[in-house]
Order: sequence, then C-alpha cells, then structure tokens
Amino acid sequence: MALQPVQAIASFGGKVEVFDHASDACNSTMRFAVYSPPQAASGPVPVLWYLSGLTCTWANVNEKSGIQRYAAEHGTMVVFPDTSPRGEGVADDEGYDLGQGAGFYVDATQDPWAEHFQMETYVTKELPALIGERFPNADMARQGITGHSMGGHGALTLHLKYRDSYVSVSAFSPIVAPTQVPWGQKAFTAYLGSDTTQWAKHDACELVKQATTKAHILIDQGAADNFLDEQLRPQLFGDACAEAGQEVSIRMREGYDHSYYFVSSFIGEHMAHHAKALKA
Amino acid sequence: MALQPVQAIASFGGKVEVFDHASDACNSTMRFAVYSPPQAASGPVPVLWYLSGLTCTWANVNEKSGIQRYAAEHGTMVVFPDTSPRGEGVADDEGYDLGQGAGFYVDATQDPWAEHFQMETYVTKELPALIGERFPNADMARQGITGHSMGGHGALTLHLKYRDSYVSVSAFSPIVAPTQVPWGQKAFTAYLGSDTTQWAKHDACELVKQATTKAHILIDQGAADNFLDEQLRPQLFGDACAEAGQEVSIRMREGYDHSYYFVSSFIGEHMAHHAKALKA
Repeated sequence: MALQPVQAIASFGGKVEVFDHASDACNSTMRFAVYSPPQAASGPVPVLWYLSGLTCTWANVNEKSGIQRYAAEHGTMVVFPDTSPRGEGVADDEGYDLGQGAGFYVDATQDPWAEHFQMETYVTKELPALIGERFPNADMARQGITGHSMGGHGALTLHLKYRDSYVSVSAFSPIVAPTQVPWGQKAFTAYLGSDTTQWAKHDACELVKQATTKAHILIDQGAADNFLDEQLRPQLFGDACAEAGQEVSIRMREGYDHSYYFVSSFIGEHMAHHAKALKA
Repeated sequence: MALQPVQAIASFGGKVEVFDHASDACNSTMRFAVYSPPQAASGPVPVLWYLSGLTCTWANVNEKSGIQRYAAEHGTMVVFPDTSPRGEGVADDEGYDLGQGAGFYVDATQDPWAEHFQMETYVTKELPALIGERFPNADMARQGITGHSMGGHGALTLHLKYRDSYVSVSAFSPIVAPTQVPWGQKAFTAYLGSDTTQWAKHDACELVKQATTKAHILIDQGAADNFLDEQLRPQLFGDACAEAGQEVSIRMREGYDHSYYFVSSFIGEHMAHHAKALKA
C-alpha cells in the first residue's frame, strides 16, 4: 500500500506529484498523479477526480489541459488515476480501445480481464483511501468528478452510482451510451460478457433513468469532434435526462474537436462549476 | 511561397493554424503555426513570436503552455516557427543539440549546415513577410519576441540585433551566453566555424554590452532547472546588463524545472508584459 514517489513538478505555486503503488484492487502496480494547489499547504481543500480517456495516463491532462491554473485559483486538489492497469502480466489487446489504457472504469468479470481490470473499485474505493491517508488536507467529504471521453463516461456513471461520494460532476465529450456505441459494446463484451443486463449498470443514460441526482450535470462537447456521431451521441443523454427530469447542461461548442485543445479551452468553466458546488 | 494548410484547431475562441511552405531561406519545406485570437477576426492585432527550444516544433508550446488563453485575453496573434529545417536531404547530427530541431536561430556559414540552416534570415525576414501577407490583421508594426531555452537565446539575440522589428522581448530559461556554455559552443562551432569573433554576434551577453535596448527585458528561470549551472547561467546576463546599463528583470523561480510546467506557470505574466508594450 505504500506510495512510491516517482516525480514532483512545480506548477502554478503548487505541485504535481506522481506515485506508483501496489494496488490490491488491480493486483498490479498502478501509477497516478495528484495536483496539490498552494492552498493545500495551509488547510483542507476539496478533491476533484479527473478521469482520462482512451490511451491516456495521468500525463496527458497534466501536460496539456492547463488544469493546474484553475485548481490553484480555486484551491482544488485534483487526482489523476491511470486509465487501466498496465505492464507485463497484465492482459492487453491490439486495439487502442480495449485492455491497457482502456479500462472503462468498470470491474471486469470475464477472463482474461478480471484478474487486473478492477478500475471501478480502484477509483471509487482503493485510491480515495490512499489519497485521504497521504494528503491530510484532502477533504474527502467534498469530492467532485470529471473526465474526458471514456473518462467522461467514468465521471457520469461513477457519480450516478456513488452520488454520496461525489458532490459535483461534469464531463468533456463523454461516451454517454456505451451500450449503444462501438467503443462501449466492444469493451463491455470483453470485460462484462454478453449479458447486456450487466452493461446497463455502466451506462449513464440507463443510470439516470433509474434515479436522478441533485447535482447539476455539466457537459461540453465539440461540434467538430470526429467521434461525435458514432461514439459519443450526447443527444441520447439529453433525452434520457429529459425523460428522467434530470438537470443537465449539454453545450455544443462550434468548431472544437476531441483533443486537449478543446478540453483546455473549457476546463476553466468546469473547474468553476466544481468549485462552486464544492465551496472551494 | 504558397502556404499549404496542414491543420486548423479551435482554441479559446480563436484558432491554431499549421502550415507547410517552401522556404527560400532554408531551401526546404518548413512548417510553422499561428494562433489567431478572436480579436483578429475584426481588426488589427499585435504579433508575438514564440521561439521554441531544442528538439521542439510548433506543437510543444501549443499543446503544453496554455499560451492561447492569454493570447485570446489580450488579443495577441502568436507565431510559432519550427526550430530548424527538417527532412530528408537536410543535414543532421546524432545529438539532440545539433542539426534538426536545433537551429539556434543563426545563419550557418559552414558545411554541411549552410545549405539549409538559415534560421536567422527565415525567422526575421522570410516568415514575417509571409505572415503579413497571409494574415491581413497581423499588425507587423507591433511585434514582440519570446522563447524558451534555445528559443530564449533566439528571442534575446534577435531582439538585440533587430530591435526595430521587435518592440518587446522576454525569455524563459534562456541560453544567455552561448559562447561560454557547451550547448552554444557545440552549435556555433558547427554552424559558424572556429572563429569565435563570429560567435559573439549571436551571444546575448555580448550584444547587450555593445548596445542596450529601450525594451525592458523580462526573464523567468526555474531555480530547480537541471541545466541552470552548466548551460543557462542567467547571472552572466544579469552582469552584462548591469555593466551596460540595460533594464532587465531576471526572476528565479524556486522549485521550478526546465519543462513546460514551468513555462505554463508564468506565460500569463509574459503575455501581459508583451501586451502592455504592444498595446494589445
């Protein structure tokens, strides 16, 4: 359970720290990063979870989104888990959208994935406990969750499943209906098997229809995103929220793509959304 | 001379555009990027040159520095040249610090470099003409220049040599005394030959002693930068400015390294410095 420091990088008056640790949930070494804002040096700060997309690690969002500026402004700690277990002995697939880098934030029940791919338990239980222990000023009573693409799916579904854990929620270009799109169907078949009743437990559209959340859900989506029509289909979530009576803002951003240029352009608004809800 | 559009990416209400073109100066295809802020759609805006460091292209600073946010805030266009000519037929070296990706913003006089490595002429003459032609709202009477590491050397020396072209100047972790440090000595020997009187024309410490500039020179330097003592040595520039009576601010930033985490943390202050001088 001990955290091994890998790197510490000064950023906007705070620091990005990268750690390795032996994960019980994933039965492997896992790497994650935490941004501590300057305010964490002197008192409790809320904690935002940022879940990354396919192929990403802790690094993409840290290097490319500019999130630290806003975290420092609001006094928000941000935790960046990896997108899957990795390394030798961990199952993988040739595709970029299954296996290492593509954990989909679910607990796999099928071979060969079940041995290591337990990302839901890892992100919602094991890692929060480690964060609370290692960072005494991380106020675990004030957590929010966000993410990009596959990580947007993670943020929406984990909020809807564990709404007592996460006060606030938002997503960038999320996979809102994994049971209806190729990325989700491929991953859920592999990780969860062919019984689609199991899939519905990890589909934001299905979950919100079962029960709404008090949180206002904020979604930004690039209108020029290559994956919009085949994989993302945010209108499905808009429809599900309308049917369920769930408050949601889905903002289509003209001209923006699926990249971190898009995320960086709007992450300041997401950080303000979370800070307001978390009283950062 | 025609610009070939490679990519256009929406960012902070403006866009990053990437172009290829046949360069006369470098006798090869060159790639560069321009960030047009939203204000450029409706009227003239000042132009800031950002010169990148060893191994970089237009992409590093665009992906990692968050510069677009501040460019959009102030209404500043930013031009991002490559760090050298590249490709087959262009001379190269095994080291990361010579040849492709390491042009040092000088016009090479020595074989095999002279045929393509004419970065001073490219950056100060050929590319500004192309920018003025392609972007009618680029106000070429209001240009500033900045850069990182080798690009900081480029910004300081090109400002000091062409002070009528660049109204404002700043640098991140610049190589201030290339004639006295290994990176500069290796590159200048290769590009300029063994006559060190030729080197002095491309050394910010030597140039400022020959003539000061009206511009206030702003430099930020990470105090935890691995290259600080061997390659950067900002105190040499501080001493040269003191001797010459040149206004300069050299700010040592505790805990910061040489990376874009450092650049991103302070680029907002540099953009404000340029915007003030350029009346953006």
